[in-house]
Amino acid sequence: MTTFEQIAAQLEGQAIEVPSWAYGNSGTRFKVFGTPGTPRTVEEKIADAATVHRFTGLAPTVALHIPWDLVDDFAALRRYAEDLGTGIGTINSNTFQDDDYKFGALTHTDAKIRQKAIDHHFECLDVMAATGSRDLKIWLAEGTNYPGQGDMRGRQDRLAESLQTIYERLLTLGDTQRLVLEYKFFEPAFYHTDVPDWGTSYAQVSALGERAMVCLDTGHHAPGTNIEFIVAQLLRLGRLGSFDFNSRFYADDDLIVGAADPFQLFRILFECVRGGGFGPDSDVAYMLDQCHNVEKKIPGQIRSVLNVQEMTARALLVDRDALTAAQEDGDVLGANAVFMDAFYTDVRPHLAAWREERGLPGDPMAAYLASGYQEQIEADRIGGAQAGWL
Amino acid sequence: MTTFEQIAAQLEGQAIEVPSWAYGNSGTRFKVFGTPGTPRTVEEKIADAATVHRFTGLAPTVALHIPWDLVDDFAALRRYAEDLGTGIGTINSNTFQDDDYKFGALTHTDAKIRQKAIDHHFECLDVMAATGSRDLKIWLAEGTNYPGQGDMRGRQDRLAESLQTIYERLLTLGDTQRLVLEYKFFEPAFYHTDVPDWGTSYAQVSALGERAMVCLDTGHHAPGTNIEFIVAQLLRLGRLGSFDFNSRFYADDDLIVGAADPFQLFRILFECVRGGGFGPDSDVAYMLDQCHNVEKKIPGQIRSVLNVQEMTARALLVDRDALTAAQEDGDVLGANAVFMDAFYTDVRPHLAAWREERGLPGDPMAAYLASGYQEQIEADRIGGAQAGWL
Amino acid sequence: MTTFEQIAAQLEGQAIEVPSWAYGNSGTRFKVFGTPGTPRTVEEKIADAATVHRFTGLAPTVALHIPWDLVDDFAALRRYAEDLGTGIGTINSNTFQDDDYKFGALTHTDAKIRQKAIDHHFECLDVMAATGSRDLKIWLAEGTNYPGQGDMRGRQDRLAESLQTIYERLLTLGDTQRLVLEYKFFEPAFYHTDVPDWGTSYAQVSALGERAMVCLDTGHHAPGTNIEFIVAQLLRLGRLGSFDFNSRFYADDDLIVGAADPFQLFRILFECVRGGGFGPDSDVAYMLDQCHNVEKKIPGQIRSVLNVQEMTARALLVDRDALTAAQEDGDVLGANAVFMDAFYTDVRPHLAAWREERGLPGDPMAAYLASGYQEQIEADRIGGAQAGWL
Amino acid sequence: MTTFEQIAAQLEGQAIEVPSWAYGNSGTRFKVFGTPGTPRTVEEKIADAATVHRFTGLAPTVALHIPWDLVDDFAALRRYAEDLGTGIGTINSNTFQDDDYKFGALTHTDAKIRQKAIDHHFECLDVMAATGSRDLKIWLAEGTNYPGQGDMRGRQDRLAESLQTIYERLLTLGDTQRLVLEYKFFEPAFYHTDVPDWGTSYAQVSALGERAMVCLDTGHHAPGTNIEFIVAQLLRLGRLGSFDFNSRFYADDDLIVGAADPFQLFRILFECVRGGGFGPDSDVAYMLDQCHNVEKKIPGQIRSVLNVQEMTARALLVDRDALTAAQEDGDVLGANAVFMDAFYTDVRPHLAAWREERGLPGDPMAAYLASGYQEQIEADRIGGAQAGWL
Repeated sequence: MTTFEQIAAQLEGQAIEVPSWAYGNSGTRFKVFGTPGTPRTVEEKIADAATVHRFTGLAPTVALHIPWDLVDDFAALRRYAEDLGTGIGTINSNTFQDDDYKFGALTHTDAKIRQKAIDHHFECLDVMAATGSRDLKIWLAEGTNYPGQGDMRGRQDRLAESLQTIYERLLTLGDTQRLVLEYKFFEPAFYHTDVPDWGTSYAQVSALGERAMVCLDTGHHAPGTNIEFIVAQLLRLGRLGSFDFNSRFYADDDLIVGAADPFQLFRILFECVRGGGFGPDSDVAYMLDQCHNVEKKIPGQIRSVLNVQEMTARALLVDRDALTAAQEDGDVLGANAVFMDAFYTDVRPHLAAWREERGLPGDPMAAYLASGYQEQIEADRIGGAQAGWL
Repeated sequence: MTTFEQIAAQLEGQAIEVPSWAYGNSGTRFKVFGTPGTPRTVEEKIADAATVHRFTGLAPTVALHIPWDLVDDFAALRRYAEDLGTGIGTINSNTFQDDDYKFGALTHTDAKIRQKAIDHHFECLDVMAATGSRDLKIWLAEGTNYPGQGDMRGRQDRLAESLQTIYERLLTLGDTQRLVLEYKFFEPAFYHTDVPDWGTSYAQVSALGERAMVCLDTGHHAPGTNIEFIVAQLLRLGRLGSFDFNSRFYADDDLIVGAADPFQLFRILFECVRGGGFGPDSDVAYMLDQCHNVEKKIPGQIRSVLNVQEMTARALLVDRDALTAAQEDGDVLGANAVFMDAFYTDVRPHLAAWREERGLPGDPMAAYLASGYQEQIEADRIGGAQAGWL
Repeated sequence: MTTFEQIAAQLEGQAIEVPSWAYGNSGTRFKVFGTPGTPRTVEEKIADAATVHRFTGLAPTVALHIPWDLVDDFAALRRYAEDLGTGIGTINSNTFQDDDYKFGALTHTDAKIRQKAIDHHFECLDVMAATGSRDLKIWLAEGTNYPGQGDMRGRQDRLAESLQTIYERLLTLGDTQRLVLEYKFFEPAFYHTDVPDWGTSYAQVSALGERAMVCLDTGHHAPGTNIEFIVAQLLRLGRLGSFDFNSRFYADDDLIVGAADPFQLFRILFECVRGGGFGPDSDVAYMLDQCHNVEKKIPGQIRSVLNVQEMTARALLVDRDALTAAQEDGDVLGANAVFMDAFYTDVRPHLAAWREERGLPGDPMAAYLASGYQEQIEADRIGGAQAGWL
Repeated sequence: MTTFEQIAAQLEGQAIEVPSWAYGNSGTRFKVFGTPGTPRTVEEKIADAATVHRFTGLAPTVALHIPWDLVDDFAALRRYAEDLGTGIGTINSNTFQDDDYKFGALTHTDAKIRQKAIDHHFECLDVMAATGSRDLKIWLAEGTNYPGQGDMRGRQDRLAESLQTIYERLLTLGDTQRLVLEYKFFEPAFYHTDVPDWGTSYAQVSALGERAMVCLDTGHHAPGTNIEFIVAQLLRLGRLGSFDFNSRFYADDDLIVGAADPFQLFRILFECVRGGGFGPDSDVAYMLDQCHNVEKKIPGQIRSVLNVQEMTARALLVDRDALTAAQEDGDVLGANAVFMDAFYTDVRPHLAAWREERGLPGDPMAAYLASGYQEQIEADRIGGAQAGWL
């Protein structure tokens, strides 16, 4: 049995990127509920993100979404973030809120609209240059709602061509930038999605080159999909670029990571550890992509990064020698028992002590709630338009 | 083999209620696309609904949604509709867009909020009195997003109590009004929904009385659910009040009825015919509940009512004597062949002739497109706020 | 925060019935793997079941399946079981392995075949009389594979009639016997199942009388179904008769309870506790229904009853006052935190001590593996036909 | 609008391979029903397959399954088949019914067991040499039932190595033989499957070489999966080797192709036509893989090949110029209407005439039922063991 002491060092430096949009309002097609204290500006979102990091030590960067987070001076925004103790992370493009993209963006039959979408990605690359971001993340909302509406095959070819253009420009930025292509089973398109599964994302990024990777959003799969298998496979193929963490009971519910199926999160993180996707030698990016529709936003983010940390600790606790021995012995129940023993271990007191040793609050949630930050932003952020998906 | 001539008479009087909100804009949480010619007022919605009826002869009433369709004088609205050749149908309540309902309406722990939601339903009953509507349809968006967030059991009890209050008031309206309770698997709530399945709706309406019925929305089920079985069961139990027709590939996609799985629509309509849920002696209400996110709205509605009519014709064509004989003989393939023979029959030319005999255009869609109505509304409806889910 | 000491007394007397067939061989349609030591007789199955109880103190009865467990003298079998420290529990009927039932049993169009199936249930009632069993459990494998193959509505009516006949005979046995009707989403039928969901089982048993109840098999639902909601609903309606515990990733996988989604098991057991379905005043029967296809059978059963016990302890640990307070306050994250705190508590050391105080091994699995029982049965049970689903 | 005359020539030469095992008994884990006339030998299976071809002209080859169809002299078996007017098609391996494969075959941790599984595939290659078969089809039943039971990542690596060994031997057979790797979502393994999705199959066969292809079984996907998208994608990537046709409502139901969702079959075949996967220039193999659990087997196969033919005709009828025009015009309903028009066209009378022009019965099912073949085999095939999955 592995002890917490044996794995404590591996928890150092764990980083979970938070998304700027988690601090704004979000909801369903039926209703978006606003909450007091919601940021009105990019700077206020970054301040909230920095607060999550200050209390947890787990979230050193914040992802931006263009155009939601468009500012005039991204270099200044970067300095602003760094002054607050955080940094700018992944740049996310958006090709789903312009009327021109109603029937596609990078896949559109009209070359002018494709070029517009490509130009938008060039703009994102400019932001990366200004902010020092490593990753351009592309999630395509494209697809069709009715059989026959579009030519799925032709759209795939046009997508390949558009991505190639973007990728080539990205390579000019420097030696480390990456293009990360997200896949999603459905929504907002309801018949077909242009990048619906990891296989499509893998086929597309493989055709681009070594710095094109797959983004795995844990909420973007068909019911019953074994996600940890995909994690293992993408790590094996060298194409797991990043995670968008969240959880779901039904569709892309965007709930707090680990909330719906904590054991699944454990299995996913175990495959990361198993396959070299965790730790200082891994360049897999861990990000959140969630919507706090009914819960408070900053506490929702704190809960999320803590969930990932706690479950990472459990995944690290798996006695892999004992596991391998039982696996090779055909001892089904023995192997499962080794696995479950780590899952059922209560790491929370250990982690509280570990945090305190590092000058962090043992209970980050309690510390945040006691800090007065929430009351302060609720008092300060009066007037103006609360940030949302706009 | 049954012929079209044998079933033609049964198609007389088929009525498919259209929803006022189908003529307004709708979309996903990511984007609502507007379209030229979208109604700005309830009256314009009703005019569009009347147009669908004028070209198809299939949609003699339009359902209203309160408060989206709130007007000062519902008696006048009714006359307006009747002047256009249509009528006011089901009244739909809305308890999902008020901030007070964030954590529940009819199920809320706070009695004051429950009463507010009950009062809203009383208001809907007043609308029914003014419009002569028969049915109050209740779809509850209520539920929770996280395990532990709410007490599912207590919410169920409070729901029963709230419904009882509404039902008792409804009984005072007259002898024919009905309360119809819709169920939905998930969305907008992502952990639990307070009326998630037909069993819950059935248990709740059975506790109310004989004029409380179940509404079956064809898009509100778990993946793989055999919906026609539920149709058969609810007809058997005498509790099938109404259909909300649409179609889906994934979740509650709200696509055009019959678009995603035409064979499923056939099976559903066959069970209606089989179980007494179709024809002049049935009081099952056939309604659409769809969103035309990317397609034109009036043509989308025309396509929808035609799909229901065409598939009803196919369902009526099933040679039920031959079917029963094969079933009782254990002739699996023979029974299936009788069933499929009707499905594969092309009823479209027959229906075109049938329509023309009745003074309707043989091809309602072509007639609409040629009529100039669309161009007219696109020219006329400039300025103002296009109707949507507000 | 509730402590283990506060809930320890509530764990007294917890009983989880084990199925005789879990000790025999089972598998998939592709292959049934045999294992050394598998019982050849009903007596050997009961001996294994008694062994599970001896090491865990949790499984005081064993369910029988007729005709798999048919013996000449059930009174003698009962004494045999009692001598080993166990008892005979639920009697399960079987109407799926006789060629006559190819197209239905209790639902068949042929009255003679229906009567044969009814007579089989009468035989089961005779077994109950001889063994002192309380519950007759009916799982119907009936349904159709192709649309049109059967008349779903007529089958439902015939089912009602057949069940009525069985129920009336059951009432003559005494004052406590119950009929428990299981539902299942699909398999072995692939188009429609005659009792596919809790709503159908509820409608059927409600029509029978107060001693007809629903059996909830945790593996028999559509993907994504919120099972704990059904538990809460059936308890509310007074119709939750029994559980068939197991777990699943995809279909009716029949894996060890708690293995696939431990958090789901927690939520289910919490609703039992919440709704009066646990403890001395509840008559809800807790049973296992699993297949140990690749793992050892007796250890598989030990693991299963321990999983239920451990998760029951966690469910009891939920601080319900704190939970209610957070719920009523609209504190989503706070309520969820109270809930998760219990789930993440490691109850295993507490339970080990609790067992030792009661003269049981602290680690029942280790004690079993060290006992030599497995080696003994592997040595003894040579020759003869290993028990399976025959 | 395309007419049948315009597409009639394209139907020439359509071939749908039938599986030998469809003529034997099959069922579920609960029961296998036997039927009169079921073959006892490989030769009788081939005779039945030849009969399907004689009445339909659509099934010129029969696939074999090793070891179920093992004979001493495969050259003689080939001549036997050819004398009956049929031929030997794909050779299917089997690594799921030997006790040694309980925990894996090509993926096993034990090199001796992997070699045994590789040797079995070498044996299949020998059969191919003797029968002149082009394709070796590998479906792996491998996987695990419990988290932790196996090392998913290591299994994937061992699979790659085993496949490489088999592929290299296959290349020595000649210039045309192919290895076709099937994927399956789940069953018989219930936690993870070693080749669960098209992405995994694609990644594995891409690593092998140009003559390694993916087999798409239409029943082997997660609920809601857009299968026609995968067809389009694999054709685009040049890796669609073959289809295993069947249909499903829930899991791998193995129902008659087109029976559960005829519109899905239409969409799949349209993508074949669209993407160059149909016709004389395509080397995509069309096969059936079905189980006739409750229906008659030869009629079940006749129904199946007719379903594929009828739906192919509908897919060919799509007016692709009109479709493209509507797609490029953003005319969602227009494009869908072009698509649906072909689907709703009743091609059956046209196909009857087409068959008669070619000396085939216009109604193959009726001709078979009138032929006396069924009565003859029921009379002749008395005694012996009926073929099944053994």
